[in-house]
Amino acid sequence: MYKVRFEPLGRQATFDRPLTILQAAQNAGVEMLALCGGQGTCARCRVKVRGDGMPPVCERERGVFNADELAEGYRLACRTTICSDVVVVVPEVSRPRRQRLQVAGQEHPVTCCPPVRKVCLQLPEPTLEDTRDDLRRLVEAGREDHGIKLAARDVTALAQLGPAARRGNWLITAALRGRDLIGVEPGDRSGNVHGVAVDLGSTKIAVYLVDLLTGVTSGSSGVPNPQIAYGEDIVSRITYALDSELGAQRLQGVVVDALNGAVAMLCDSAGIVPEDVLEFTVVGNTAMHHLFLGLPTAQLSRAPFVPVAASPLEVTARSLGLRGASGAIVYCPPCVAGFVGSDHVAMVLASRMAGLPGTVLGIDIGTNTEISLKHNARLQAVSCASGPAFEGAALCWGVKAAPGAIERVWIDPDSHAVHAVTIDGQEPVGICGSGILDCVAGMLQAGMLDRNGHVLGNSPAIRLGADGLRELVVARSANGAAITVSQRDVERIQLAKGAIRSGIDVLLDAAGIAWQDIDATILAGAFGTFIDPLSAIRIGMLPPVDPDCIVQVGNAAGVGAKEVLISMERRHAYEELAETIEYLELTVYPRYSRVFARSLRF
Amino acid sequence: MYKVRFEPLGRQATFDRPLTILQAAQNAGVEMLALCGGQGTCARCRVKVRGDGMPPVCERERGVFNADELAEGYRLACRTTICSDVVVVVPEVSRPRRQRLQVAGQEHPVTCCPPVRKVCLQLPEPTLEDTRDDLRRLVEAGREDHGIKLAARDVTALAQLGPAARRGNWLITAALRGRDLIGVEPGDRSGNVHGVAVDLGSTKIAVYLVDLLTGVTSGSSGVPNPQIAYGEDIVSRITYALDSELGAQRLQGVVVDALNGAVAMLCDSAGIVPEDVLEFTVVGNTAMHHLFLGLPTAQLSRAPFVPVAASPLEVTARSLGLRGASGAIVYCPPCVAGFVGSDHVAMVLASRMAGLPGTVLGIDIGTNTEISLKHNARLQAVSCASGPAFEGAALCWGVKAAPGAIERVWIDPDSHAVHAVTIDGQEPVGICGSGILDCVAGMLQAGMLDRNGHVLGNSPAIRLGADGLRELVVARSANGAAITVSQRDVERIQLAKGAIRSGIDVLLDAAGIAWQDIDATILAGAFGTFIDPLSAIRIGMLPPVDPDCIVQVGNAAGVGAKEVLISMERRHAYEELAETIEYLELTVYPRYSRVFARSLRF
Repeated sequence: MYKVRFEPLGRQATFDRPLTILQAAQNAGVEMLALCGGQGTCARCRVKVRGDGMPPVCERERGVFNADELAEGYRLACRTTICSDVVVVVPEVSRPRRQRLQVAGQEHPVTCCPPVRKVCLQLPEPTLEDTRDDLRRLVEAGREDHGIKLAARDVTALAQLGPAARRGNWLITAALRGRDLIGVEPGDRSGNVHGVAVDLGSTKIAVYLVDLLTGVTSGSSGVPNPQIAYGEDIVSRITYALDSELGAQRLQGVVVDALNGAVAMLCDSAGIVPEDVLEFTVVGNTAMHHLFLGLPTAQLSRAPFVPVAASPLEVTARSLGLRGASGAIVYCPPCVAGFVGSDHVAMVLASRMAGLPGTVLGIDIGTNTEISLKHNARLQAVSCASGPAFEGAALCWGVKAAPGAIERVWIDPDSHAVHAVTIDGQEPVGICGSGILDCVAGMLQAGMLDRNGHVLGNSPAIRLGADGLRELVVARSANGAAITVSQRDVERIQLAKGAIRSGIDVLLDAAGIAWQDIDATILAGAFGTFIDPLSAIRIGMLPPVDPDCIVQVGNAAGVGAKEVLISMERRHAYEELAETIEYLELTVYPRYSRVFARSLRF
Repeated sequence: MYKVRFEPLGRQATFDRPLTILQAAQNAGVEMLALCGGQGTCARCRVKVRGDGMPPVCERERGVFNADELAEGYRLACRTTICSDVVVVVPEVSRPRRQRLQVAGQEHPVTCCPPVRKVCLQLPEPTLEDTRDDLRRLVEAGREDHGIKLAARDVTALAQLGPAARRGNWLITAALRGRDLIGVEPGDRSGNVHGVAVDLGSTKIAVYLVDLLTGVTSGSSGVPNPQIAYGEDIVSRITYALDSELGAQRLQGVVVDALNGAVAMLCDSAGIVPEDVLEFTVVGNTAMHHLFLGLPTAQLSRAPFVPVAASPLEVTARSLGLRGASGAIVYCPPCVAGFVGSDHVAMVLASRMAGLPGTVLGIDIGTNTEISLKHNARLQAVSCASGPAFEGAALCWGVKAAPGAIERVWIDPDSHAVHAVTIDGQEPVGICGSGILDCVAGMLQAGMLDRNGHVLGNSPAIRLGADGLRELVVARSANGAAITVSQRDVERIQLAKGAIRSGIDVLLDAAGIAWQDIDATILAGAFGTFIDPLSAIRIGMLPPVDPDCIVQVGNAAGVGAKEVLISMERRHAYEELAETIEYLELTVYPRYSRVFARSLRF
C-alpha cells in the first residue's frame, strides 16, 4: 500500500501494486497527455516526482531531460514505475486541454465594487397639499435614507419614475450609477443587480452575464461575430464600412443584434430580463472597438494606424441599441494603439502579469498577435500581423476548432507514423490551428522539414500533392480523402510564426535582454490556450523557454472585461495599466527587418 | 410755430396751426387708439400732457378722469387742442397693438455668456514615430493652447474628430460645452456659434435662432403646434398619449419634426446649417415639457397633478431626434408644478418682475392662465383653468387672431352702435379673443348685460338668436351673415374671467393685501398682448388697477427662453427663481369657492 498525491490538483490515491505514474494517474482520474499511448516515444507525460525509492532514470528519460531537470526530479510518467509514497507534480504542459468553452479563462478573486447599485426607497405619496414632483420626492428620500445626492441626468430612466412609484405604491427601487439615476422599478428589486462583460473578437464574441452583488458569472456564451458576413478580416470590414454608405452602421448593428440575442438568452437562463442589466463592459481590438462605438475606422487601415480615441469611453447602451436598464452605460476601457486594443490590455490585467516577479511575456495569438513584455517596471507592447493561418484559415485542410478538427498531432520521430487526435474523437474533417502547429513541429523533429521550411521527401508520410509540391498526410477523412499539410501550408505557418517571433525578439531587443531572461510566458486567447507550447517552441514561434513557465490562461481578455465590470478598483487598475503600456511600432524599429528574416527560419 | 414731442417714442414734430393732440399725433405718424374716430365718446385716446397754455378740461374729460388723473395732466387727445410747445406721453394703453409676429416680446439687455463655445486648434500630425490617438492630440492642444481640460463624453462628436482633422489638414474647430466636446469641424469655424430657443406652447411654437457670440436673434418663427391634430387641448393629448401605444412617441415626434423644420428654415435664412446649432433651450407648460422629453403625462391629468420632474433637465438633441451639432444639448429649465410650467417661470424671468419695486402681478393668459404675485420677497403662483374661450375656441363666432378676425370692438354707450376693427382691415370672418373681451366690456358699459351675465333686450344691437337666447350683432360677414356674441358666449367668457379673477384674488388674499396694493401688472403671451386692458378691467377679469401700470410684454416666455440660452447667469437666475416661486393649489385654498363665485359677477 502506498499513496500518490497529484499536484497541483491535490488529488490523492492509494495503490497496492507497482504502477507507472501514468497508470496511477489514469486510475486516480488525473488526466495526463500520452499521445504515443505510453510507449515512451512522445515524451509528453513529463512530471516532477518527490519521494523516496524511485527507480533509476532510464535511457529515454536521459534523452528527454537535461541534467538540471533530472536533478529537479523530472521523469516521464509512462517510463517510471512507483511502489512507495510519492508526490507527483503534473505541469500544465503535460495536461490535455479539453476545455471547449472558449469563453472561459483563468480567474483571480476580485472583490465586488461595481459602479452601479440599487437602493429601495419608500417615497411619501403626493397630495393636493404636497404637490412636489416625483423626482424631488426621490431625491429627498435618497438623501435622508441613504445620504445620496441623487442626480437624474438620464431622462429615459427618469420617465420610469412616475409610473413605477404609482404601481409600487410609492415603494420603489432606484438603480444608480454613482449618483446618477439609471432606472426605476416598482417595489423592492434591490437584490437584482447584473452586468454584462463582452470580449468582442473579430471572429468570436464572448458574452458573460455577471451578478454584480456577488461577482459570480451567471452564464457565458460564445457567438460568432456576424460581421464576418461583411469581411473575414478586419481590413475588409473597414473597407466595407468606408465603401458602403450605411456600411459602418450595419457592422455596428449586426454586433449589437448579436449581443442583444446573447444577453437575452443568458438572462432567460438566469431568470432575469435584459432590463436588469445595469452596466456593460466591452473589450476588443481597436478596429472592433471603433466599429462598435461608431467611430470612423478608415484611419486604422492606413499608416500611421492611429485610433480616433484610445481613452476610456462611456456611452449609453440605449444609444447603441443595446437592451439593458434605461440608463445603462457601456464602458469601453482604453486601447493602446491602432493594433493593440483593449482586449490585450484586459488580458495583461487579468493575467496579473504586471505584478508578477521577473520578466514576463504575454501573448495573445490571433490574426493580429499582440505581445507585451514586462521587464523591470516597464511594459512594452507590439502587434504582429500573424495572419489567419493559426485560426485554420487559408490552409489546404484548415478548419476552425470544432468537432472533427484534428487538434493534436504527434509524429513518431523514428517511424514517421502520424498520430492524430480530433476534437470530441469524431471522424477527421480537417486540421485546426493547434493541429497544424503540431504537424510542423513533428515534421521538424522527424527531420521532414529543413530549416528554411522545405518539406523533404525522405518519409513514407510525405507524398507529392496535386500542385507538384510535397505534403504530409496527417489522416484520412471518412470518405478516404487524405487530410494533408502542404508545402504552402508550411510556408504560411512559417510566416505566421516568424511574425510572432520577430515581435518577441524586438521586445527583448528593446529591453536589452535575451530570451533566457524570460521568467514566465503567458499564452492567452482561444488559440493560445489550445496549442501545445512544446510545438510552439519547436517551430520557433516561441523562444526555447522552460515549458513549465508557460501558462495558458484561456480567454483572459474576457476575464479582464469581467474584472472591470465588477470592480471599480480593477477599472482604475486597467486604466493605469493602459497608460503604462508603451506601444512599440515594429515597422520603424531599426533592426526589424533583420530580426524578421531571422525569425522565419525553423 | 410750436413743437410737440411724443413720449416714450421720442418723436418730435413742428406745427404752425392749432390741432387736437390726436390730429398732431396722426400727422406726426404716432399711432394712437381712436375707436370712435375722434368723437370723444370711446375715451381711448388718453394721454398725459406737459406744457403751458393748455386749454381747459372739457365736460367729457371730467367724466373720464378722476381728480388725481386730471392733476397729473391726463387729457383725451381728441378733445384737447394745442397751439404751443408740449410733451405728450402716450401710455401703452392708448396705443394700438399691431404687432402680428406673436413670437416677439419685450427684451432687456443680457450679456452673452452661453454654455457653449468654439475653439480653433492646430493639432500635430501623427507619424509612425508619434502614434498617439487623435483625441489625445486634441486634449493636449486644448490644454496647451487654451488651458482647457477637455473631455470627450459624447462619442458621436468624437467620431467627427478623425475625419475632420484629416480633412482640415489638422486645423480643426472644437465645439465645447463646458469642457465637453460636442462637435468637431475641419478648419477654423470659431465664429460660428449658434443656439435655438423655443417656447413650446400648446397652440403655437415660437422658435428663435440666436447668434451666441453676439446674443442677436438672427431670426424667429412661429409655427402651429402639430399636436393639435391629436387633441385641441392638453387633456385630450394626454389621453391620446395614454390610449395609443405609440401615442406619446408620436406627440413627441411631431413636435420634433416641427422644430426641425423651423430650425432648418431659420438656419437657411441665416446662411448656416442646423449642425451649427450648439445648444437648445425649451420652455413650455408642464404637459408640453413632459411630452417633449418623453416623460409620462398621465399623472398630470389626475389629482394631485404632480409632475414627474420639475427640476432642470438636459438631454442630447440627438436622443430627441432634433438636428443640431453632434453633442448639442437641449436644456429644459425647471417647472414649478403640474400647471405652472417653465414658460411661466421664463415670463417671470424675462419681465424682471421679481426685481421690480412694490407689488407686481404677472399674468400669462391661455387655456390655463398662470398668475404670479410678487409681494415683499415672496413670489406665489396659481394656475386657473380659464379655458379656450380667450383663444377664440368654443365660441359661436370665435376665430384665431388671423386676418379678418374682429380684434377690437367699441360699443357707443349711448347709441349702442357697434364699431368693429378687423386684423389687417379685411372683411370680418369672426371674432378673436381680444374682440370678444371688448364686446362683453362694451355691452356692460352700455347696460346691455346685467351683473349676472344675462344679455338684456334693451338695445337695437341685440336680437334673438336661433337658440331662442339673446345675442349681440357685432358685424356682418362678406356674405351678409351676422357675426354675433351669444348669451352662451358671454357665459363662457364669464367663466373664463371668473377663473382668472379668482386666481388673482386668492393670491392677494394669501398675501394679505388688496388689489389697491398692486403697483404693476404684467400681461404676457399672445392674448395678453392684444387685449385691451381697459376691457379686461371692465369685465372684472382684472381688478380695477391703474391701466397705465399695466404692461403688455408680448411673448415673455420666448424672451426668457432666449435669455437662458445666451447667458449662464440668466440660467442660474431662472433656476433660483423657479425655486423661489411657491405654488398655491387653488382647489385646496380654504376660501376658494367663495372667491370664485364672487369672481363670476360682472
